[in-house]
Amino acid sequence: MSLADIERAAERLAGVAARTPLIAFPSTDPALVLKAESFQPIGAFKVRGAYATISALPEERRARGVVTHSSGNHAQAVAYSARLLGIRAVLVIPHTTPGVKVDACMKHGAEIVYVEPTMEARTATAAKLAEAHGFTLIPPFDDERIVAGQGTVGLEIVQDCPDVEAVLVPVGGGGLLSGVAAAVKALRPKAKVIGVEPELAADARDSLRAGRPVAWAPEETGRTVADALRVQCVGEVPFAHIREYVDDIVTVTEDEIRQAMRRLAREARLIAEPAGAVGAAAYLFRRHELPDARTYVSVLSGGNVDPALFLDVYA
Amino acid sequence: MSLADIERAAERLAGVAARTPLIAFPSTDPALVLKAESFQPIGAFKVRGAYATISALPEERRARGVVTHSSGNHAQAVAYSARLLGIRAVLVIPHTTPGVKVDACMKHGAEIVYVEPTMEARTATAAKLAEAHGFTLIPPFDDERIVAGQGTVGLEIVQDCPDVEAVLVPVGGGGLLSGVAAAVKALRPKAKVIGVEPELAADARDSLRAGRPVAWAPEETGRTVADALRVQCVGEVPFAHIREYVDDIVTVTEDEIRQAMRRLAREARLIAEPAGAVGAAAYLFRRHELPDARTYVSVLSGGNVDPALFLDVYA
Repeated sequence: MSLADIERAAERLAGVAARTPLIAFPSTDPALVLKAESFQPIGAFKVRGAYATISALPEERRARGVVTHSSGNHAQAVAYSARLLGIRAVLVIPHTTPGVKVDACMKHGAEIVYVEPTMEARTATAAKLAEAHGFTLIPPFDDERIVAGQGTVGLEIVQDCPDVEAVLVPVGGGGLLSGVAAAVKALRPKAKVIGVEPELAADARDSLRAGRPVAWAPEETGRTVADALRVQCVGEVPFAHIREYVDDIVTVTEDEIRQAMRRLAREARLIAEPAGAVGAAAYLFRRHELPDARTYVSVLSGGNVDPALFLDVYA
Repeated sequence: MSLADIERAAERLAGVAARTPLIAFPSTDPALVLKAESFQPIGAFKVRGAYATISALPEERRARGVVTHSSGNHAQAVAYSARLLGIRAVLVIPHTTPGVKVDACMKHGAEIVYVEPTMEARTATAAKLAEAHGFTLIPPFDDERIVAGQGTVGLEIVQDCPDVEAVLVPVGGGGLLSGVAAAVKALRPKAKVIGVEPELAADARDSLRAGRPVAWAPEETGRTVADALRVQCVGEVPFAHIREYVDDIVTVTEDEIRQAMRRLAREARLIAEPAGAVGAAAYLFRRHELPDARTYVSVLSGGNVDPALFLDVYA
């Protein structure tokens, strides 16, 4: 996956994904600037990878429809993209998924198939549906086309902040981090790209240290409030790019994530889901672990926060 | 006040005021787009008029310092601008003003003079201070330089949305509405510019109907939750431009303002103060009173909302 792939994805996304703004966190020195992916049409960056991938499928495959297994922002992104392209989207979803998340997907016209809440049930069902109906499986992160789509976030950061010195990026499956790192390093080799993840789901840090993907158990990663970062292991495709382009991965505590969400809302008027606040948390509480910079750009990856959680954090 | 004045203000504001983004409210048809002035450094558009005015003062007057009487966003804007320019700012503030608002001003290094909470005490004290110390009074809205500064919001709307058809603007003292209307009508004469104000503080609507500024009593305008729109009467300078350039003024109820704040936060991930939500309220609840358009641009004028009020509205 090269810069040219990311640039092609950017062309596909023009007019579909929002060109999200860089928002300054007031009164910060060195400056903290948020790349606010919360203002995407589905409230998170995932629309970039999903739409770039689906729209690039050969016409006859695309016409047969797509399938994915996810209960989060990627599912919404696939549903949204499929509707825009006028094709079927089938989402394989654990029957334990909160109704509000399912509703958000159904709003875009996707078909839902409920399964037991195990990874085996999810992948097996999606594979069966793909085979039986000719659907194309759209993976959430372990795919070069997805990584290239998410990498358009990095392109825009460099375009809007040409002297960028440090970029902070949440890491779950690694699609966003690897894409952003590839774009930023291709254009600004001296800029530092730092992954940020919850201390309670630090598999990407362990992987970077070990030099190979290291998995955590679901009962471990399941503890963090950052639901979008509960992935047990970074994907192989993202990991190859992370190893090549990412300078470091730092971790933040649950309390730091909540405090960052609160300060983003109260001081910067930005609503972040927990995963979207980890970069700001690293800036606010772990600056001694970060490289020096005059400006830190932090990717606020999404704003799809459970209202009860947001109320609790904001109050 | 002409387009050239607004363009000169825009030059002064480059690098000081944020070039705020247009944010799409998801899944709206016709589209609702928010000009998010909540992302200004002080959280509201007022920095535009204040900085444009203060920075344009002759060197020797500017060096003596500035004074204003306000407890709201204009006071913060004057304090912030004065600090950037390295001059004194004295704020005449009713002693009943909530501590959080005073703190926000003091944070920028302004000096505070407390007075009785009457308009007479405020204006008389500010005038005395100006005379005694040579401070320049920076009025909140009834001033051509202030109107030109706020008008830069309109310039940016036309630049970023060249085919704009309808613009919704909150109206309190009229500085923002008159400046935006002058800019938009100069560049896009066919676009409609609509003022929006609370039904409980509808002095601007009455003024437009009467053809002259009509004042409401403070115990009337004081009823609305939109604290930034409790001004009793539009200024004479703004009114002259409103009369010439504004197509209509519509009103919204208190419940509509609260519902718009809630939906902006939950669906568009934008935190608005009540005044900043009136345009969205008009779009959501009063579209039958608005001209037809494919896209409505609504000025989200600020995000400085009392946290307790925001919690109550969001929950």
